[in-house]
Amino acid sequence: MNRGIFITMEGPEGAGKTTIIQMLGKALQEEGYQVLLTREPGGVPISEQIREVILNKANTAMDPRTEALLYAAARRQHLVEIVIPELERGGIVLCDRFIDSSLAYQGYARGLDIEEVYNINKFAIGDMMPDATFFFDIDPEEGLRRIQSNGDREVNRLDLEAIDFHKKVCEGYQLIINRWKDRFIIVDAGRTIEDVFEETKARLLTFLEKTEQ
Amino acid sequence: MNRGIFITMEGPEGAGKTTIIQMLGKALQEEGYQVLLTREPGGVPISEQIREVILNKANTAMDPRTEALLYAAARRQHLVEIVIPELERGGIVLCDRFIDSSLAYQGYARGLDIEEVYNINKFAIGDMMPDATFFFDIDPEEGLRRIQSNGDREVNRLDLEAIDFHKKVCEGYQLIINRWKDRFIIVDAGRTIEDVFEETKARLLTFLEKTEQ
Repeated sequence: MNRGIFITMEGPEGAGKTTIIQMLGKALQEEGYQVLLTREPGGVPISEQIREVILNKANTAMDPRTEALLYAAARRQHLVEIVIPELERGGIVLCDRFIDSSLAYQGYARGLDIEEVYNINKFAIGDMMPDATFFFDIDPEEGLRRIQSNGDREVNRLDLEAIDFHKKVCEGYQLIINRWKDRFIIVDAGRTIEDVFEETKARLLTFLEKTEQ
Repeated sequence: MNRGIFITMEGPEGAGKTTIIQMLGKALQEEGYQVLLTREPGGVPISEQIREVILNKANTAMDPRTEALLYAAARRQHLVEIVIPELERGGIVLCDRFIDSSLAYQGYARGLDIEEVYNINKFAIGDMMPDATFFFDIDPEEGLRRIQSNGDREVNRLDLEAIDFHKKVCEGYQLIINRWKDRFIIVDAGRTIEDVFEETKARLLTFLEKTEQ
Protein backbone atom coordinates (compact mmCIF):
# COMPACT_ATOMS: atom_id res chain seq x y z
CA MET A 1 0.00 0.00 0.00
CA ASN A 2 1.27 3.43 -0.96
CA ARG A 3 0.48 5.16 2.33
CA GLY A 4 0.23 8.92 2.15
CA ILE A 5 1.55 11.49 4.61
CA PHE A 6 -0.42 12.74 7.58
CA ILE A 7 0.44 16.23 8.84
CA THR A 8 -1.31 18.05 11.67
CA MET A 9 -1.22 21.72 12.59
CA GLU A 10 -1.39 22.84 16.21
CA GLY A 11 -1.14 25.95 18.30
CA PRO A 12 -3.06 28.28 20.58
CA GLU A 13 -5.82 30.56 19.35
CA GLY A 14 -4.60 33.52 17.31
CA ALA A 15 -1.46 31.84 15.94
CA GLY A 16 -2.72 32.18 12.35
CA LYS A 17 -2.83 28.43 11.87
CA THR A 18 -6.05 28.27 9.87
CA THR A 19 -4.96 30.97 7.39
CA ILE A 20 -1.56 29.33 6.91
CA ILE A 21 -3.17 25.96 6.17
CA GLN A 22 -5.24 27.44 3.35
CA MET A 23 -2.12 29.05 1.87
CA LEU A 24 -0.17 25.79 2.21
CA GLY A 25 -2.88 23.80 0.46
CA LYS A 26 -2.70 26.08 -2.55
CA ALA A 27 1.12 26.08 -2.57
CA LEU A 28 1.34 22.28 -2.36
CA GLN A 29 -1.09 21.84 -5.23
CA GLU A 30 1.04 24.21 -7.32
CA GLU A 31 4.01 21.98 -6.54
CA GLY A 32 2.05 19.02 -7.93
CA TYR A 33 1.11 17.35 -4.67
CA GLN A 34 -2.29 15.68 -4.06
CA VAL A 35 -3.40 17.36 -0.83
CA LEU A 36 -6.51 17.28 1.32
CA LEU A 37 -7.14 20.07 3.83
CA THR A 38 -9.44 19.03 6.64
CA ARG A 39 -10.43 19.76 10.20
CA GLU A 40 -12.63 17.87 12.62
CA PRO A 41 -15.58 17.23 12.31
CA GLY A 42 -14.88 17.58 8.58
CA GLY A 43 -18.41 17.26 7.26
CA VAL A 44 -18.74 13.68 8.54
CA PRO A 45 -22.38 13.47 9.72
CA ILE A 46 -21.70 11.35 12.83
CA SER A 47 -18.88 13.67 13.94
CA GLU A 48 -21.08 16.72 13.20
CA GLN A 49 -23.79 15.26 15.45
CA ILE A 50 -21.24 14.67 18.22
CA ARG A 51 -19.95 18.22 17.82
CA GLU A 52 -23.49 19.55 18.21
CA VAL A 53 -23.70 17.81 21.58
CA ILE A 54 -20.34 19.30 22.64
CA LEU A 55 -21.18 22.85 21.53
CA ASN A 56 -24.88 22.88 22.56
CA LYS A 57 -25.12 25.87 24.91
CA ALA A 58 -27.85 24.14 26.93
CA ASN A 59 -25.35 21.45 27.99
CA THR A 60 -23.87 23.43 30.88
CA ALA A 61 -23.75 20.28 33.02
CA MET A 62 -21.19 18.63 30.73
CA ASP A 63 -18.41 16.97 32.69
CA PRO A 64 -14.84 17.49 31.32
CA ARG A 65 -14.37 13.73 30.93
CA THR A 66 -17.61 13.42 28.96
CA GLU A 67 -16.33 16.21 26.71
CA ALA A 68 -12.93 14.53 26.22
CA LEU A 69 -14.63 11.22 25.28
CA LEU A 70 -16.91 13.01 22.81
CA TYR A 71 -13.95 14.73 21.12
CA ALA A 72 -12.20 11.35 20.86
CA ALA A 73 -15.36 9.78 19.35
CA ALA A 74 -15.72 12.58 16.77
CA ARG A 75 -11.99 12.27 15.99
CA ARG A 76 -12.27 8.51 15.41
CA GLN A 77 -15.12 8.87 12.94
CA HIS A 78 -13.46 11.72 11.00
CA LEU A 79 -10.25 9.68 10.86
CA VAL A 80 -12.00 6.55 9.56
CA GLU A 81 -14.19 8.31 7.00
CA ILE A 82 -11.90 11.10 5.73
CA VAL A 83 -8.26 10.82 6.75
CA ILE A 84 -7.53 7.10 6.38
CA PRO A 85 -9.15 6.72 2.92
CA GLU A 86 -7.13 9.69 1.63
CA LEU A 87 -3.88 8.29 3.08
CA GLU A 88 -4.67 4.93 1.49
CA ARG A 89 -4.95 6.71 -1.87
CA GLY A 90 -1.41 7.96 -1.19
CA GLY A 91 -2.42 11.59 -0.62
CA ILE A 92 -1.14 14.19 1.79
CA VAL A 93 -3.56 15.16 4.55
CA LEU A 94 -3.18 18.50 6.35
CA CYS A 95 -5.42 18.48 9.41
CA ASP A 96 -6.17 21.63 11.41
CA ARG A 97 -5.89 20.38 15.02
CA PHE A 98 -5.85 16.72 16.06
CA ILE A 99 -4.87 14.70 19.14
CA ASP A 100 -2.50 17.36 20.56
CA SER A 101 -5.34 19.87 20.90
CA SER A 102 -7.18 17.43 23.17
CA LEU A 103 -4.01 16.87 25.17
CA ALA A 104 -3.31 20.62 25.57
CA TYR A 105 -6.89 21.83 26.10
CA GLN A 106 -8.63 18.97 27.96
CA GLY A 107 -5.59 17.07 29.19
CA TYR A 108 -3.74 20.05 30.62
CA ALA A 109 -5.61 23.38 30.57
CA ARG A 110 -8.94 21.90 31.76
CA GLY A 111 -7.16 20.01 34.52
CA LEU A 112 -7.58 16.42 33.38
CA ASP A 113 -4.40 14.39 32.95
CA ILE A 114 -2.40 14.45 29.66
CA GLU A 115 -1.57 10.76 29.99
CA GLU A 116 -5.19 9.75 30.58
CA VAL A 117 -6.48 11.87 27.68
CA TYR A 118 -3.69 10.40 25.52
CA ASN A 119 -4.88 6.89 26.35
CA ILE A 120 -8.48 7.43 25.26
CA ASN A 121 -7.20 9.12 22.10
CA LYS A 122 -4.91 6.17 21.40
CA PHE A 123 -8.03 4.03 21.54
CA ALA A 124 -9.59 6.41 19.00
CA ILE A 125 -6.69 6.71 16.55
CA GLY A 126 -4.77 3.44 16.95
CA ASP A 127 -1.45 3.74 15.11
CA MET A 128 -2.56 6.79 13.11
CA MET A 129 -0.35 9.29 14.88
CA PRO A 130 0.62 12.16 12.57
CA ASP A 131 3.85 11.79 10.62
CA ALA A 132 4.69 15.37 11.55
CA THR A 133 3.03 18.13 13.53
CA PHE A 134 3.66 21.83 12.96
CA PHE A 135 3.39 23.90 16.10
CA PHE A 136 2.68 27.59 15.58
CA ASP A 137 4.39 29.14 18.53
CA ILE A 138 3.08 32.48 19.73
CA ASP A 139 3.04 34.29 23.03
CA PRO A 140 -0.45 33.69 24.48
CA GLU A 141 -1.07 37.41 25.11
CA GLU A 142 -0.08 38.28 21.55
CA GLY A 143 -2.38 35.50 20.26
CA LEU A 144 -5.27 36.89 22.25
CA ARG A 145 -4.60 40.44 21.00
CA ARG A 146 -4.65 39.19 17.42
CA ILE A 147 -8.02 37.51 17.85
CA GLN A 148 -9.54 40.55 19.46
CA SER A 149 -8.32 42.90 16.75
CA ASN A 150 -9.24 40.51 13.94
CA GLY A 151 -12.50 41.53 12.32
CA ASP A 152 -12.61 38.36 10.24
CA ARG A 153 -14.36 36.29 12.82
CA GLU A 154 -16.25 36.77 16.06
CA VAL A 155 -14.50 36.40 19.38
CA ASN A 156 -15.70 33.03 20.71
CA ARG A 157 -16.10 31.48 24.15
CA LEU A 158 -12.53 30.19 24.25
CA ASP A 159 -11.20 33.60 23.25
CA LEU A 160 -12.98 35.22 26.13
CA GLU A 161 -11.59 32.96 28.80
CA ALA A 162 -8.95 34.46 30.95
CA ILE A 163 -5.45 34.93 29.62
CA ASP A 164 -4.53 32.39 32.31
CA PHE A 165 -6.31 29.73 30.31
CA HIS A 166 -4.38 30.66 27.15
CA LYS A 167 -1.16 30.47 29.11
CA LYS A 168 -2.13 27.04 30.39
CA VAL A 169 -2.81 25.83 26.85
CA CYS A 170 0.68 26.98 25.85
CA GLU A 171 2.22 25.26 28.87
CA GLY A 172 0.34 22.10 27.92
CA TYR A 173 1.69 22.26 24.38
CA GLN A 174 5.24 22.61 25.72
CA LEU A 175 4.84 19.41 27.75
CA ILE A 176 3.49 17.61 24.69
CA ILE A 177 6.30 18.88 22.46
CA ASN A 178 8.88 17.71 25.00
CA ARG A 179 7.33 14.26 25.00
CA TRP A 180 7.13 13.86 21.20
CA LYS A 181 10.19 15.88 20.15
CA ASP A 182 10.75 13.94 16.93
CA ARG A 183 7.25 14.56 15.61
CA PHE A 184 7.09 18.32 16.13
CA ILE A 185 8.30 21.10 13.84
CA ILE A 186 8.17 24.43 15.68
CA VAL A 187 7.49 27.63 13.75
CA ASP A 188 7.79 31.09 15.30
CA ALA A 189 4.31 32.49 14.63
CA GLY A 190 5.02 35.90 16.16
CA ARG A 191 5.88 37.39 12.75
CA THR A 192 3.82 38.42 9.71
CA ILE A 193 1.58 35.83 8.10
CA GLU A 194 3.77 35.94 4.96
CA ASP A 195 6.94 35.18 6.91
CA VAL A 196 5.28 32.39 8.86
CA PHE A 197 3.85 30.95 5.65
CA GLU A 198 7.19 31.02 3.80
CA GLU A 199 9.02 29.25 6.62
CA THR A 200 6.25 26.67 7.06
CA LYS A 201 6.09 25.96 3.33
CA ALA A 202 9.86 25.50 3.09
CA ARG A 203 9.99 23.17 6.08
CA LEU A 204 6.94 21.22 4.91
CA LEU A 205 8.42 20.71 1.43
CA THR A 206 11.69 19.55 2.99
CA PHE A 207 9.77 17.10 5.18
CA LEU A 208 7.77 15.75 2.23
CA GLU A 209 10.87 15.29 0.06
CA LYS A 210 12.72 13.53 2.88
CA THR A 211 9.72 11.29 3.64
CA GLU A 212 9.18 10.26 0.06
CA GLN A 213 12.75 9.17 -0.48
CA MET B 1 -19.11 10.93 53.88
CA ASN B 2 -21.73 8.22 54.20
CA ARG B 3 -21.23 6.63 50.80
CA GLY B 4 -24.10 4.52 49.54
CA ILE B 5 -23.94 1.18 47.75
CA PHE B 6 -23.65 0.81 44.00
CA ILE B 7 -25.07 -2.39 42.49
CA THR B 8 -25.19 -3.19 38.78
CA MET B 9 -27.21 -5.84 36.97
CA GLU B 10 -25.84 -7.59 33.92
CA GLY B 11 -26.65 -10.42 31.56
CA PRO B 12 -27.54 -11.23 27.96
CA GLU B 13 -30.85 -10.27 26.40
CA GLY B 14 -33.82 -12.30 27.64
CA ALA B 15 -32.43 -13.05 31.11
CA GLY B 16 -35.32 -11.20 32.80
CA LYS B 17 -32.97 -8.61 34.28
CA THR B 18 -35.18 -5.57 33.79
CA THR B 19 -38.27 -7.20 35.32
CA ILE B 20 -36.24 -8.46 38.30
CA ILE B 21 -34.84 -4.98 38.97
CA GLN B 22 -38.33 -3.49 39.19
CA MET B 23 -39.34 -6.23 41.67
CA LEU B 24 -36.16 -5.70 43.69
CA GLY B 25 -36.74 -1.95 43.92
CA LYS B 26 -40.17 -2.51 45.44
CA ALA B 27 -38.89 -5.23 47.79
CA LEU B 28 -35.99 -3.09 49.05
CA GLN B 29 -38.27 -0.14 49.73
CA GLU B 30 -40.54 -2.43 51.77
CA GLU B 31 -37.48 -3.42 53.79
CA GLY B 32 -36.90 0.27 54.54
CA TYR B 33 -33.98 0.90 52.17
CA GLN B 34 -33.55 4.14 50.19
CA VAL B 35 -33.13 2.83 46.66
CA LEU B 36 -32.78 4.38 43.21
CA LEU B 37 -33.44 2.28 40.11
CA THR B 38 -31.72 3.63 37.02
CA ARG B 39 -30.37 2.72 33.62
CA GLU B 40 -28.27 4.65 31.15
CA PRO B 41 -28.99 7.24 29.78
CA GLY B 42 -31.33 7.74 32.76
CA GLY B 43 -33.08 10.89 31.62
CA VAL B 44 -29.86 12.92 31.67
CA PRO B 45 -30.19 15.26 28.65
CA ILE B 46 -26.53 15.07 27.55
CA SER B 47 -26.55 11.27 27.75
CA GLU B 48 -29.91 11.16 25.91
CA GLN B 49 -28.39 13.27 23.10
CA ILE B 50 -25.40 10.92 22.91
CA ARG B 51 -27.74 7.92 22.82
CA GLU B 52 -29.63 9.49 19.91
CA VAL B 53 -26.38 9.60 17.95
CA ILE B 54 -25.66 5.93 18.78
CA LEU B 55 -29.15 4.69 17.88
CA ASN B 56 -29.77 6.95 14.85
CA LYS B 57 -30.51 4.49 12.04
CA ALA B 58 -28.96 6.85 9.47
CA ASN B 59 -25.56 6.41 11.15
CA THR B 60 -24.69 3.17 9.36
CA ALA B 61 -21.07 4.32 8.94
CA MET B 62 -20.47 4.30 12.70
CA ASP B 63 -17.15 2.70 13.58
CA PRO B 64 -17.18 0.30 16.59
CA ARG B 65 -14.58 2.43 18.39
CA THR B 66 -16.66 5.58 17.89
CA GLU B 67 -19.62 3.68 19.37
CA ALA B 68 -17.58 2.47 22.37
CA LEU B 69 -16.37 6.04 23.09
CA LEU B 70 -19.93 7.37 22.85
CA TYR B 71 -21.21 4.75 25.31
CA ALA B 72 -18.38 5.69 27.69
CA ALA B 73 -19.25 9.40 27.35
CA ALA B 74 -22.96 8.78 28.04
CA ARG B 75 -21.98 6.58 31.00
CA ARG B 76 -19.76 9.30 32.48
CA GLN B 77 -22.50 11.91 32.36
CA HIS B 78 -25.17 9.61 33.84
CA LEU B 79 -22.73 8.63 36.58
CA VAL B 80 -21.90 12.25 37.45
CA GLU B 81 -25.46 13.56 37.35
CA ILE B 82 -27.46 10.62 38.76
CA VAL B 83 -25.42 7.85 40.37
CA ILE B 84 -22.77 9.77 42.33
CA PRO B 85 -25.18 12.31 43.91
CA GLU B 86 -27.41 9.45 45.10
CA LEU B 87 -24.44 7.53 46.54
CA GLU B 88 -23.30 10.71 48.28
CA ARG B 89 -26.74 10.90 49.92
CA GLY B 90 -26.03 7.39 51.22
CA GLY B 91 -28.58 5.66 49.01
CA ILE B 92 -28.51 2.33 47.22
CA VAL B 93 -28.29 2.55 43.42
CA LEU B 94 -29.42 -0.40 41.28
CA CYS B 95 -28.27 0.21 37.72
CA ASP B 96 -29.54 -1.86 34.79
CA ARG B 97 -26.32 -2.47 32.80
CA PHE B 98 -23.07 -0.58 33.28
CA ILE B 99 -19.39 -1.04 32.36
CA ASP B 100 -19.61 -4.84 31.92
CA SER B 101 -22.14 -4.48 29.10
CA SER B 102 -19.62 -2.42 27.14
CA LEU B 103 -16.92 -4.99 27.87
CA ALA B 104 -19.10 -7.94 26.77
CA TYR B 105 -20.84 -6.30 23.79
CA GLN B 106 -18.24 -3.91 22.33
CA GLY B 107 -15.11 -5.31 23.96
CA TYR B 108 -15.74 -8.95 23.08
CA ALA B 109 -18.76 -9.64 20.85
CA ARG B 110 -18.08 -6.73 18.47
CA GLY B 111 -14.46 -7.76 18.21
CA LEU B 112 -12.71 -4.88 19.97
CA ASP B 113 -10.49 -5.75 22.91
CA ILE B 114 -11.89 -6.13 26.45
CA GLU B 115 -8.78 -4.54 27.96
CA GLU B 116 -8.91 -1.52 25.63
CA VAL B 117 -12.63 -0.96 26.21
CA TYR B 118 -12.00 -1.32 29.94
CA ASN B 119 -9.38 1.43 29.78
CA ILE B 120 -11.64 4.01 28.16
CA ASN B 121 -14.36 3.11 30.64
CA LYS B 122 -11.94 3.53 33.54
CA PHE B 123 -11.35 7.05 32.22
CA ALA B 124 -15.14 7.52 32.28
CA ILE B 125 -15.91 6.07 35.72
CA GLY B 126 -12.70 6.60 37.71
CA ASP B 127 -12.95 4.66 40.96
CA MET B 128 -16.71 4.23 40.71
CA MET B 129 -16.66 0.51 39.97
CA PRO B 130 -19.81 -1.20 41.27
CA ASP B 131 -19.66 -2.63 44.79
CA ALA B 132 -21.36 -5.75 43.46
CA THR B 133 -22.66 -6.94 40.10
CA PHE B 134 -25.43 -9.50 39.68
CA PHE B 135 -25.04 -11.61 36.57
CA PHE B 136 -28.23 -13.22 35.30
CA ASP B 137 -26.93 -16.38 33.73
CA ILE B 138 -29.00 -17.90 30.96
CA ASP B 139 -28.30 -20.10 27.97
CA PRO B 140 -28.15 -17.69 24.98
CA GLU B 141 -30.62 -19.77 22.93
CA GLU B 142 -33.10 -19.85 25.81
CA GLY B 143 -32.67 -16.07 26.24
CA LEU B 144 -33.42 -15.50 22.57
CA ARG B 145 -36.51 -17.78 22.70
CA ARG B 146 -37.83 -15.79 25.64
CA ILE B 147 -37.47 -12.48 23.84
CA GLN B 148 -39.16 -13.80 20.71
CA SER B 149 -42.11 -15.24 22.64
CA ASN B 150 -42.43 -12.16 24.87
CA GLY B 151 -45.27 -9.94 23.68
CA ASP B 152 -44.34 -7.21 26.16
CA ARG B 153 -41.85 -5.51 23.93
CA GLU B 154 -40.81 -5.48 20.32
CA VAL B 155 -37.94 -7.60 19.10
CA ASN B 156 -35.09 -5.14 18.56
CA ARG B 157 -32.03 -5.04 16.37
CA LEU B 158 -29.82 -6.85 18.86
CA ASP B 159 -32.44 -9.60 19.27
CA LEU B 160 -32.40 -10.20 15.56
CA GLU B 161 -28.69 -10.70 15.26
CA ALA B 162 -27.54 -14.24 14.85
CA ILE B 163 -27.54 -16.59 17.81
CA ASP B 164 -23.77 -16.58 17.31
CA PHE B 165 -23.66 -13.00 18.52
CA HIS B 166 -25.65 -13.91 21.66
CA LYS B 167 -23.24 -16.75 22.31
CA LYS B 168 -20.31 -14.36 21.95
CA VAL B 169 -21.86 -11.95 24.45
CA CYS B 170 -22.13 -14.82 26.94
CA GLU B 171 -18.53 -15.86 26.29
CA GLY B 172 -17.49 -12.25 26.87
CA TYR B 173 -19.35 -12.13 30.17
CA GLN B 174 -17.59 -15.32 31.28
CA LEU B 175 -14.18 -13.73 30.65
CA ILE B 176 -15.23 -10.64 32.59
CA ILE B 177 -16.57 -12.69 35.50
CA ASN B 178 -13.31 -14.64 35.66
CA ARG B 179 -11.37 -11.39 35.84
CA TRP B 180 -13.50 -9.74 38.57
CA LYS B 181 -14.57 -12.83 40.53
CA ASP B 182 -14.99 -10.97 43.83
CA ARG B 183 -17.40 -8.42 42.42
CA PHE B 184 -19.82 -10.81 40.69
CA ILE B 185 -22.81 -12.63 42.15
CA ILE B 186 -24.09 -15.22 39.65
CA VAL B 187 -27.79 -16.08 39.57
CA ASP B 188 -29.18 -18.96 37.51
CA ALA B 189 -31.75 -17.12 35.37
CA GLY B 190 -33.00 -20.25 33.58
CA ARG B 191 -35.87 -20.65 36.06
CA THR B 192 -39.20 -18.86 36.60
CA ILE B 193 -39.08 -15.10 37.25
CA GLU B 194 -40.38 -15.71 40.80
CA ASP B 195 -37.57 -18.16 41.60
CA VAL B 196 -34.92 -15.86 40.13
CA PHE B 197 -36.35 -12.87 42.02
CA GLU B 198 -36.43 -14.71 45.36
CA GLU B 199 -32.83 -15.85 45.06
CA THR B 200 -31.64 -12.42 43.90
CA LYS B 201 -33.50 -10.63 46.69
CA ALA B 202 -32.07 -12.95 49.35
CA ARG B 203 -28.52 -12.58 48.06
CA LEU B 204 -28.87 -8.81 47.66
CA LEU B 205 -30.16 -8.41 51.23
CA THR B 206 -27.28 -10.54 52.50
CA PHE B 207 -24.82 -8.36 50.57
CA LEU B 208 -26.35 -5.13 51.88
CA GLU B 209 -26.32 -6.35 55.50
CA LYS B 210 -22.73 -7.50 55.17
CA THR B 211 -21.66 -4.21 53.55
CA GLU B 212 -23.35 -2.00 56.11
CA GLN B 213 -21.73 -3.70 59.08
